[in-house]
Amino acid sequence: MLYFIGLGLGDERDVSVRGLEVIKRCERVYLEAYTSVLMGSADPSRLEEFYGRKVIVADREMVESESDAILAGAQEVDVAFLVVGDPYGATTHSDLALRAAELNIPTKTIHNASIMNAVGACGLQLYNFGQTISLVFFTDSWRPDSFYPKVQENAQIGLHTLCLLDIKVKEPTLESLARGKKVYEPPRYMTVNQAVEQLLEVEENRQEKAYTADTIAVGVARLGSDTQLMRAGTLAQLRDVDFGAPLHSLVLVGSRLHLLEADALRQIAVDREALDVVLARDYGITH
Amino acid sequence: MLYFIGLGLGDERDVSVRGLEVIKRCERVYLEAYTSVLMGSADPSRLEEFYGRKVIVADREMVESESDAILAGAQEVDVAFLVVGDPYGATTHSDLALRAAELNIPTKTIHNASIMNAVGACGLQLYNFGQTISLVFFTDSWRPDSFYPKVQENAQIGLHTLCLLDIKVKEPTLESLARGKKVYEPPRYMTVNQAVEQLLEVEENRQEKAYTADTIAVGVARLGSDTQLMRAGTLAQLRDVDFGAPLHSLVLVGSRLHLLEADALRQIAVDREALDVVLARDYGITH
Repeated sequence: MLYFIGLGLGDERDVSVRGLEVIKRCERVYLEAYTSVLMGSADPSRLEEFYGRKVIVADREMVESESDAILAGAQEVDVAFLVVGDPYGATTHSDLALRAAELNIPTKTIHNASIMNAVGACGLQLYNFGQTISLVFFTDSWRPDSFYPKVQENAQIGLHTLCLLDIKVKEPTLESLARGKKVYEPPRYMTVNQAVEQLLEVEENRQEKAYTADTIAVGVARLGSDTQLMRAGTLAQLRDVDFGAPLHSLVLVGSRLHLLEADALRQIAVDREALDVVLARDYGITH
Repeated sequence: MLYFIGLGLGDERDVSVRGLEVIKRCERVYLEAYTSVLMGSADPSRLEEFYGRKVIVADREMVESESDAILAGAQEVDVAFLVVGDPYGATTHSDLALRAAELNIPTKTIHNASIMNAVGACGLQLYNFGQTISLVFFTDSWRPDSFYPKVQENAQIGLHTLCLLDIKVKEPTLESLARGKKVYEPPRYMTVNQAVEQLLEVEENRQEKAYTADTIAVGVARLGSDTQLMRAGTLAQLRDVDFGAPLHSLVLVGSRLHLLEADALRQIAVDREALDVVLARDYGITH
């Protein structure tokens, strides 16, 4: 059996009791380490100690090109594939599941919290979110704005947009790729500030007002950990707020904001008076 | 401290290790038992045995009218408020959180899986979901269709719609309310079949084609439990599929369906050939 096991959002103790029981009895344990990271346990040895099992860190290369090694013998023995958050959060690992099916390996999923549902902690109702988008790091030559129409679609209905922010873990340097021997860049995690910069650059270019510097948004950092931080303000304000260590996410607040949601945002406002001005002017909400 | 603790979707072992540690040391433990139920553990005594703590079942009346009893002394002692799924899933218990804030009681949330993210297990990408809707039981005199414009908004963009289905637990009978002494109805859980009936009745009345009997949908039952069942087909097909015991949910599939998502639906098709016909004709997807 191949088990996809969600680890949740904080540290090693956010795994479920059921998940931990399964991990402890699996013959091999892999940790997916390229689409997210467990904030409190960047070091796999901490997981190993907690599980009492060896943990094999699976980077993108391994999962994409050596999936048969991961799946070896899983018709007979139990193998765990650990995913930070929920296995069906942002990335679904459907290639691995599909390959398992081809090899007649049964699979089972043990769910956990992911940013996709835990973001409700900021006080915005999950009911009022539209489609989720991803923001990737801009480079000098690649500044994709394919997310923009999706934000626009959400905004036209008045829905909130959850923006998942890029992480780059174990990316080979361009120079090393040219030389044929891979050397890896240090890991990078997009901050709320960088996300805001990129969003505003794209709006500046397109001028279609899917959002503006005055759009209210919520910066979310280290959700589900003890140092969780959430701040609401305009994009212009959030550009300069220091959210500290990764992981960060951002929510663009839609115009169909309810009074109760607005109350929650006021509790975490960067500047409550300034927020009230924008709430009254652009969202029709007065206190 | 007041802890909001998500129990996840299956049974008592889906709580996180962190959540279990907190529950075991709390002075009082409440179980929110009116917006969802833990499928494998309908009997609170099973939770009590697992936690080694007394569990107080909190129905809607208690949470709404006796919140100060729940919060009593929580400035000094730890109190746990257990919620099936994630505390910020469908219902946010913001009244309780607000009351705690007024009483200077610090709160903390321990997240878990909810239907809002675990529904990705059906093979549809969470990225492609629009706003979530709730379907309530129709009565002879109350057949609300306020969900309809929301489905329509999602459908116009081509997004999927997660439909959460009503549960009625500990509802007083109308007769007993009239007499002034409450007697409760037996619990009721909306089935996929009932949801489809109601959806089609509303479409029949409105004729605006937010969806039709030919719209592809996924019926989801007991997600996250060992008896989890997911079936994809047209609404007309799903009307007659027996999904067994509660809880059920339903996903209306949007036209922006990806090939990979369609592949996943084919794996769980009620009738694969019939599904392929509709995929080709209405969703532009051929295999």
